[in-house]
Amino acid sequence: MIEQQQFSISTRGRGTYDITREVQKIAQQSGIQTGLCHVFTHHTSASLILCENADPTVRGDLERFMARIAPDGDPLFQHADEGPDDMPAHIRSILTNMDLTVPVTSGRCALGTWQGIYLWEHRAHGHSRRVTVTIQGE
Amino acid sequence: MIEQQQFSISTRGRGTYDITREVQKIAQQSGIQTGLCHVFTHHTSASLILCENADPTVRGDLERFMARIAPDGDPLFQHADEGPDDMPAHIRSILTNMDLTVPVTSGRCALGTWQGIYLWEHRAHGHSRRVTVTIQGE
Amino acid sequence: MIEQQQFSISTRGRGTYDITREVQKIAQQSGIQTGLCHVFTHHTSASLILCENADPTVRGDLERFMARIAPDGDPLFQHADEGPDDMPAHIRSILTNMDLTVPVTSGRCALGTWQGIYLWEHRAHGHSRRVTVTIQGE
Repeated sequence: MIEQQQFSISTRGRGTYDITREVQKIAQQSGIQTGLCHVFTHHTSASLILCENADPTVRGDLERFMARIAPDGDPLFQHADEGPDDMPAHIRSILTNMDLTVPVTSGRCALGTWQGIYLWEHRAHGHSRRVTVTIQGE
Repeated sequence: MIEQQQFSISTRGRGTYDITREVQKIAQQSGIQTGLCHVFTHHTSASLILCENADPTVRGDLERFMARIAPDGDPLFQHADEGPDDMPAHIRSILTNMDLTVPVTSGRCALGTWQGIYLWEHRAHGHSRRVTVTIQGE
Repeated sequence: MIEQQQFSISTRGRGTYDITREVQKIAQQSGIQTGLCHVFTHHTSASLILCENADPTVRGDLERFMARIAPDGDPLFQHADEGPDDMPAHIRSILTNMDLTVPVTSGRCALGTWQGIYLWEHRAHGHSRRVTVTIQGE
């Protein structure tokens, strides 16, 4: 069995957006009991992460960390066609990935207690980000 | 065909733990000849990596690298509920991921000669870490 | 349905090599309409990334970024059996991963407009790099 669905998320600029509920809903509606749930975003300046879901300062610290290792406007970068946040957004996306896969067990994404699925917008301004969820199993 | 199994590993604190044998055993016992083997850990302060399996100083250098880019007790981090290693553990996990997928060929995980599968504990103290292995194929 | 194929790519040393066409061809020839396409490289000093495919300076900046956070010959690293680029190559591979998975929709890898699939050679000299592509779906 296979189920594939797409949704979009309108970001309000840099930051993390919880998509756990959307993904979990697609997984549960698929009727698949045991398998895998793959989540993908079709961009090069946004990424998907599994992150601690209890304390929002964790995601604030993630931003601060990225701002330190790949800061906006860094003179190291030649590519700045779309502004000082352009190349940092590509680097942050590649370091944290555009795809992730979670096991499906008993008809649900078997996330750990503290694991949430987040889309991470790396551009300063808001964008519409397309996400495809694919569930395979039986 | 699909096979899903879980196991736990008791870590003794920060460091890498070779789980190649456990994963390979589940893959081989599944009877699946061609497909994919997905490995997942249900936590936000431990990760899974494919790493060189011959010289242990490689994994020592990985620790030293992470200690440089995301050091314990860094004043940059606001989240320190569980101690100075709390936020660095989240960052290190997100940079190296909680999941990985390896092709299954001729009934085995088709790892390269030097590739081992390691659970990387990022907390200073030991924890019990849950791992789910899912194999799909024919 | 499942399809698995392998190919090799001869690198000319450090840099990114576009393999989108090879992967897309295998996906399309599989006849699978809806599913997932997994790409894997069997090494510990090369990786696979989804990266912006329009401006080559993006990939140049990626190299410059990695040269800053994990430079060749860094005295932090004890493992240098194969030269000053040995340990940096392992670190860069682990930060960017040896595997990635893309959804298959309407018989093609559903890449975003600006997403290309690149093999990233992290060793200074050229190597032959083995890639396995596995497509599952219906």
